[in-house]
Amino acid sequence: MKWKPNRHSHLTVQEQIVDWIKTRIERGDWTVGTKIPTQRQLATQFNVNRSTVQLALDELKANGLLESKMGSGVFLANNSWNVLLNSAQPNWQQHIESSIHKPNYHTIQLINQCEQMDHIIRLGTGELSPELLPTKQIEQSLKNISLESKAIGYSSPQGSEKLRGILCEYLKKRGIQTAPENILIVSGALQALQLIAIGLLEEGSSVFHEQPSYLNSVHPFQSAGMRMISVSRDSHLTNNLRALKRKRQALFYCVPTLHNPTGYNWSLEEKKNLYNMCKELQIPIIEDDVYHELLFESSSPAIKSFDTSGQVLYIGSVSKTLSPGLRIGWVVAPSPVIERLADIKMQTDYGSSAFSQEIVAHWISFGLYEKHLIKLREQLKRRATYVEEILEQKFQQIATWKKSEGGFYIWIRFHEPIVNKALFLNLLNQNVLINPGYIYKSSDLHHIRLSFAYASLEELKEGLNILLELSRH
Amino acid sequence: MKWKPNRHSHLTVQEQIVDWIKTRIERGDWTVGTKIPTQRQLATQFNVNRSTVQLALDELKANGLLESKMGSGVFLANNSWNVLLNSAQPNWQQHIESSIHKPNYHTIQLINQCEQMDHIIRLGTGELSPELLPTKQIEQSLKNISLESKAIGYSSPQGSEKLRGILCEYLKKRGIQTAPENILIVSGALQALQLIAIGLLEEGSSVFHEQPSYLNSVHPFQSAGMRMISVSRDSHLTNNLRALKRKRQALFYCVPTLHNPTGYNWSLEEKKNLYNMCKELQIPIIEDDVYHELLFESSSPAIKSFDTSGQVLYIGSVSKTLSPGLRIGWVVAPSPVIERLADIKMQTDYGSSAFSQEIVAHWISFGLYEKHLIKLREQLKRRATYVEEILEQKFQQIATWKKSEGGFYIWIRFHEPIVNKALFLNLLNQNVLINPGYIYKSSDLHHIRLSFAYASLEELKEGLNILLELSRH
Repeated sequence: MKWKPNRHSHLTVQEQIVDWIKTRIERGDWTVGTKIPTQRQLATQFNVNRSTVQLALDELKANGLLESKMGSGVFLANNSWNVLLNSAQPNWQQHIESSIHKPNYHTIQLINQCEQMDHIIRLGTGELSPELLPTKQIEQSLKNISLESKAIGYSSPQGSEKLRGILCEYLKKRGIQTAPENILIVSGALQALQLIAIGLLEEGSSVFHEQPSYLNSVHPFQSAGMRMISVSRDSHLTNNLRALKRKRQALFYCVPTLHNPTGYNWSLEEKKNLYNMCKELQIPIIEDDVYHELLFESSSPAIKSFDTSGQVLYIGSVSKTLSPGLRIGWVVAPSPVIERLADIKMQTDYGSSAFSQEIVAHWISFGLYEKHLIKLREQLKRRATYVEEILEQKFQQIATWKKSEGGFYIWIRFHEPIVNKALFLNLLNQNVLINPGYIYKSSDLHHIRLSFAYASLEELKEGLNILLELSRH
Repeated sequence: MKWKPNRHSHLTVQEQIVDWIKTRIERGDWTVGTKIPTQRQLATQFNVNRSTVQLALDELKANGLLESKMGSGVFLANNSWNVLLNSAQPNWQQHIESSIHKPNYHTIQLINQCEQMDHIIRLGTGELSPELLPTKQIEQSLKNISLESKAIGYSSPQGSEKLRGILCEYLKKRGIQTAPENILIVSGALQALQLIAIGLLEEGSSVFHEQPSYLNSVHPFQSAGMRMISVSRDSHLTNNLRALKRKRQALFYCVPTLHNPTGYNWSLEEKKNLYNMCKELQIPIIEDDVYHELLFESSSPAIKSFDTSGQVLYIGSVSKTLSPGLRIGWVVAPSPVIERLADIKMQTDYGSSAFSQEIVAHWISFGLYEKHLIKLREQLKRRATYVEEILEQKFQQIATWKKSEGGFYIWIRFHEPIVNKALFLNLLNQNVLINPGYIYKSSDLHHIRLSFAYASLEELKEGLNILLELSRH
């Protein structure tokens, strides 16, 4: 993908490099004060001799576009804009830094970037391996989808009526009785959290969640100015919540089935305790239930299934089971809540892809989805067993873990607090990408969220070997 | 879609109605203090006698679930929850009212709702008529799409590499030279505005725009706390901007080609003036260019085509041309901006539908898109001519307008200030939905944004007749 000089051009390689750098500056890709890559890096990228790069850079320095700073590299000169274009570009960096939304944590930005690189072994990825995705079956099903003109126009605020009707039937199997007007189609579970954050809570509201938490690795609530409060799922929960709940509004976020990142499954009693306590304190519950279909054994009922007070906002999705590329999830909630969230969704993206909604409706209503899930669970179980065997053979001395009950993850605890950013970067240096525990709980230096769902068996083996080696240092 | 009692049930109709109302309360659809629909409305909905409804309501009142308030109707009783469930539900209304994001304007919420009703004649809708959408051709093309597993996983932060590559070629025809790393795929142009609002501006920044403005009918910037400042496109623009630009950051939003709602096309000189002035003042420009392919005659170059300073954030989309249901648009900008917006998009919805991206890539790269556009422009021109003939025959005495140069809209100005909310509601009462000028400029009671793109020719004729009649009162 990266640009290289064209050997057949009428321009010399040096001229092409000079032009390429000028274009970077013109487009605003390199802003004033940017440190440009080293000669060595550029030579590698361009596949040319360092001396050619040096000549090009010298030319640009002579023109006043670049300047060397002793010992620290070559930078875009302060007046490069005046020289090049007699103009000033907007100071994008300043725009970005002073704007509203928080940037992702650096480790997570790195993870997002590295997940695009083919040579990286991804030991933490919360996504099905390409080989587990029913790509060919979906491709095949596209041939059988018939579209109606109305369906591919702007969607109704709550999403496709057809899909919402089908979801009502489908949710019955999870013990949830609902109606199309109580469902909102969203572009994945994360968007649901985003809409709830800006649509149902006043600034400064309390969001209770368990530690470690998925909500520390994304931050829909933090970006909207909410206070995140960690609680534990023990017998003191009720008293704690009672004490912690201030006059401000509050909300309880939980993943009771195949918790991310720990894989824990709440008992029915724990679910009922939480529900009763939140009902008493009038704290709405978000039940994030995106993993339940990946349980190896049958699960206890969803909290939503015994919600008789419109207390639970239930979130489902096909991203973990069918294809994340569909970007389709749903919220089940009382209709004033659904109408509110739909109104905001209309204001931000005018609804989710009609085509994705058609595909999901097709897969659920024709039974393709359920058939796929049966096979998928088997494959995931085989992968879990494979990884657990490696762990038992090699990691017994340095770590503990629980046998997987389903989903994607094994939450490994190292005896020593070795899982820090240095380990993360050292592993990355060896092309192994992990999801360290500290992105789910900042003080945690003991855990790794190991995913058996993404990497190939070979990669899992190789990656775990490298992890083992670096863990010992 | 609305529930009706089942005549074949083992329950009496009255019992079914009682159960249905209890379910409304349990699900939280009707909250404490809600005024329930009148007996007449319920009888119509259920298709039963009023007396049956009355008996059901009496039963619920006797149980303490409902209460009558003299002269104002039947309400959910304060203690209905205690009676029904011995519980208290969250006060959703309070949650909604104190939360962060603003609700849509009431007229716009009504428009969103009524656009879902089949019997309504939509005279203002900014959307292609179902008969103009290439539904069957898209359905056919689905059979020829081959998917790769990698493509239907989580997308790279900037969106499909394949689509971005294809867009680079496509944008050349618009005079825009760019590279895949300068493109972000978004779920429609509105999402682009949303991302820019929270990702590039500090709170309280100035957003300059022309009046009337699309930005008054949606409010991505207002919701993020920006100051909206109206400016006009005249010779004093430079002086005005210089005076208005404070120390805070600023941004200029424009739709220079087929402006929404007026249909105006900026001259090349106007574009260059704006560009030079914004460059001097370091004010970034958003060029919203979603309509340009619908011009009946060729257009002057996009502002982005002569942007040599990374000043212009260019927005395109297929929503107005191919299918809004795809939810695919793009932003072209300097790479620090693109990376920033991509980072926020990852935090809010993890990218746009991979399937929609595949479809757009297929349509552009195989030339289906361009072929479709040629036909579409012809059809729109025929519709414009049809509507203009009606206007000339019937509206000459009471209104003025300019001949359409393309797109969807004719911006009609009535001599008298009659376009108020009463006219909007009176028309709606006769099943005619308009987009009144006041949603684009709150003080405007003269204009209607008439769309010749959505309603059928028959409906356009009928709707215009009703409009004519009510305009005369």
